Amino acid sequence: MDYRFARRAQLTQDSFITEIFKYLQDKEVISFSGGFPNPSTFPLLELQASAQKVFTHEGSSVLQYATTNGDLDLRRFISERYRVRQDLEVPADQILITSGSQQALDYIGKVFLEPGDTILIEEPSYLGAIQTFTSYDVDIQTVKLQENGIDLVELETKIVQFNPKLIYLIPSFQNPSGISYSQEKRFAVAELLKKHDVVLVEDDPYNELYYEGNVQHPISTHLKDRSILLGSFSKTISPGMRVGWVSASKEVYKKLFTAKEASDLHSSSLDQRILVNYLYDYDYDDHLNKLRERYASQHHIMLEAIQIYFPNEVKVYPSNGGMFIWVELPEGISSVKLFYEAVKVKVVFVPGDPFYVNEQDTNTLRLSFANETPERILEGIKRLGNLIQQSI
Amino acid sequence: MDYRFARRAQLTQDSFITEIFKYLQDKEVISFSGGFPNPSTFPLLELQASAQKVFTHEGSSVLQYATTNGDLDLRRFISERYRVRQDLEVPADQILITSGSQQALDYIGKVFLEPGDTILIEEPSYLGAIQTFTSYDVDIQTVKLQENGIDLVELETKIVQFNPKLIYLIPSFQNPSGISYSQEKRFAVAELLKKHDVVLVEDDPYNELYYEGNVQHPISTHLKDRSILLGSFSKTISPGMRVGWVSASKEVYKKLFTAKEASDLHSSSLDQRILVNYLYDYDYDDHLNKLRERYASQHHIMLEAIQIYFPNEVKVYPSNGGMFIWVELPEGISSVKLFYEAVKVKVVFVPGDPFYVNEQDTNTLRLSFANETPERILEGIKRLGNLIQQSI
Repeated sequence: MDYRFARRAQLTQDSFITEIFKYLQDKEVISFSGGFPNPSTFPLLELQASAQKVFTHEGSSVLQYATTNGDLDLRRFISERYRVRQDLEVPADQILITSGSQQALDYIGKVFLEPGDTILIEEPSYLGAIQTFTSYDVDIQTVKLQENGIDLVELETKIVQFNPKLIYLIPSFQNPSGISYSQEKRFAVAELLKKHDVVLVEDDPYNELYYEGNVQHPISTHLKDRSILLGSFSKTISPGMRVGWVSASKEVYKKLFTAKEASDLHSSSLDQRILVNYLYDYDYDDHLNKLRERYASQHHIMLEAIQIYFPNEVKVYPSNGGMFIWVELPEGISSVKLFYEAVKVKVVFVPGDPFYVNEQDTNTLRLSFANETPERILEGIKRLGNLIQQSI
Repeated sequence: MDYRFARRAQLTQDSFITEIFKYLQDKEVISFSGGFPNPSTFPLLELQASAQKVFTHEGSSVLQYATTNGDLDLRRFISERYRVRQDLEVPADQILITSGSQQALDYIGKVFLEPGDTILIEEPSYLGAIQTFTSYDVDIQTVKLQENGIDLVELETKIVQFNPKLIYLIPSFQNPSGISYSQEKRFAVAELLKKHDVVLVEDDPYNELYYEGNVQHPISTHLKDRSILLGSFSKTISPGMRVGWVSASKEVYKKLFTAKEASDLHSSSLDQRILVNYLYDYDYDDHLNKLRERYASQHHIMLEAIQIYFPNEVKVYPSNGGMFIWVELPEGISSVKLFYEAVKVKVVFVPGDPFYVNEQDTNTLRLSFANETPERILEGIKRLGNLIQQSI
């Protein structure tokens, strides 16, 4: 049978993540690869109690069709938290609950992007976003990240040069680099976008995962109608329940709503009710504090191990939150090659390539410390260090 | 702020369903409108027990990220049921779990449809499908339904005339018409599609809701690689959990998988595990038998009431399963006008318009009998009958 597929269906290839998944079946394999939260941090008993409560008290209403925008209590919780914690006024009726914030990216693509449009993203950037935007057949231009955020000069040059429809940024504990924008840079980016009248897509799933200080205000705080802000409970509570959200101006919200209505009607109302009961019945901030301590400690252990076992020629990017450490090998060393060497000694990570647009055999790689024990982090870094030493 | 939306974002309008929702807050309103299953049929206690079991025995694995294709046990259940009940061989690895079968329609659009393509659908057809396909900027051509299925002569003429990329059909207890294709017509449609080498999208969420006899084999049984078959637990267990599926040839499956990966990674693993535990631990067929009895009885009551209270000039289409009765008013009577009259006497239904492509002020309407009590069905039909009588 000769199928007549759409052009866009030819654009997205198998992601490298599928390749990595093959090796994760073996429990002996030490994985620094996934963006998976540590399952021991899931509030399992609390969610179980919430599920019981939902089934018992909300009867079958929770099993019925629900409205597209999502559970009102949940949207109010998110709205209130933005107001109190991030100095951001986002009314509950401008928050759309999505199946993970990944789904919001798809709807943003659907609402804004046409073949030939240009979108600006960071280099490196989140591979899932690159995959989604690629499926909309657009020209993806990149702007380099510096240690305190995006390169402002390059950003303005490329805005002028390409007139992008959207700019996609992950300003807090970025995936994959772990980099966070300084307060000054956030403000400067906002000023630039206002000056050139560009819409920001701000992806902010890691903002609560800071190891010291407090949550940083999103760039959206300074932008109002010019921004679309994405959030998620995947990194802080549970990714398997697929609950994220997107907030936007009324006009954009309406379009995103229609996109979701035509795509899956609504996200699981059962999961939303379990989650919102958990959020109202338990101390979410206490949970987050424990999560931060855990990740800060594992981050520290991995950094220490890198200092001991990696050659001095290896560069490690500074980060102070999130789930990732970004590593730059000496020039000319391919991290994909290193990946296949590492697989032989039962260590996996994500090579840099999928975080770039059209670059191959990069010398960068992403290490996640979230999902392993301290012992296995030490052992894995030791093995990787040996391999890098040999390849220099 | 002037947003530069994509062309496709201008195409889909607010659906009439949003308009109807406004009136459903009032508990006094008798609703024949939604495609909502009757919540008293949800296996609430069984699902609650399954949820407990999942939280207790599957620990936090169920809260973690999962694979895009969906839960393997669930896909095996679906595959086995197709084999035993419908004489259809669909391997579990060619079944993709989606967030309701609505989501599968979106991915089919993403994988196949480009602006200017033509797709053939029934007239009338499911409004959610019309909305989804419209968002892909395609030319939607329609073929009239007869009492035993689609008009074969018109179907062949339009296939030859428009060379459609896909044909979208709902052969069992169609939404909105309630019509089911005869066995002969199913076979004849399959032969036509083979002859002209067209891909069928077969939407089959109501197939288990027959009131007598047994489940009818989908047209896909005769088509193999030329068909894409959609299914759902929304009408039989719970729509709020958003669990549906799509099965297709390996080549098409791969494309749908990538579309889902780039769109929401995977559907809720918690919901999938609760559902599959329910399916393996309880007697699904016993549940379905009760559901069928309930709907058959409510269908019967509504039909009887229509015979008593509607004028003879009103035509009612035959149906023998599903959730809907399709009504044709005498020519020249607008069902949208009737809707706003009916709202005043606290009865709502869905006027025909949204089930057509580009037709307005149609004289047809859809009545759902699933979600009301016998008393309210009688009372609602009586009030509608009065209004129709007055408008003749």
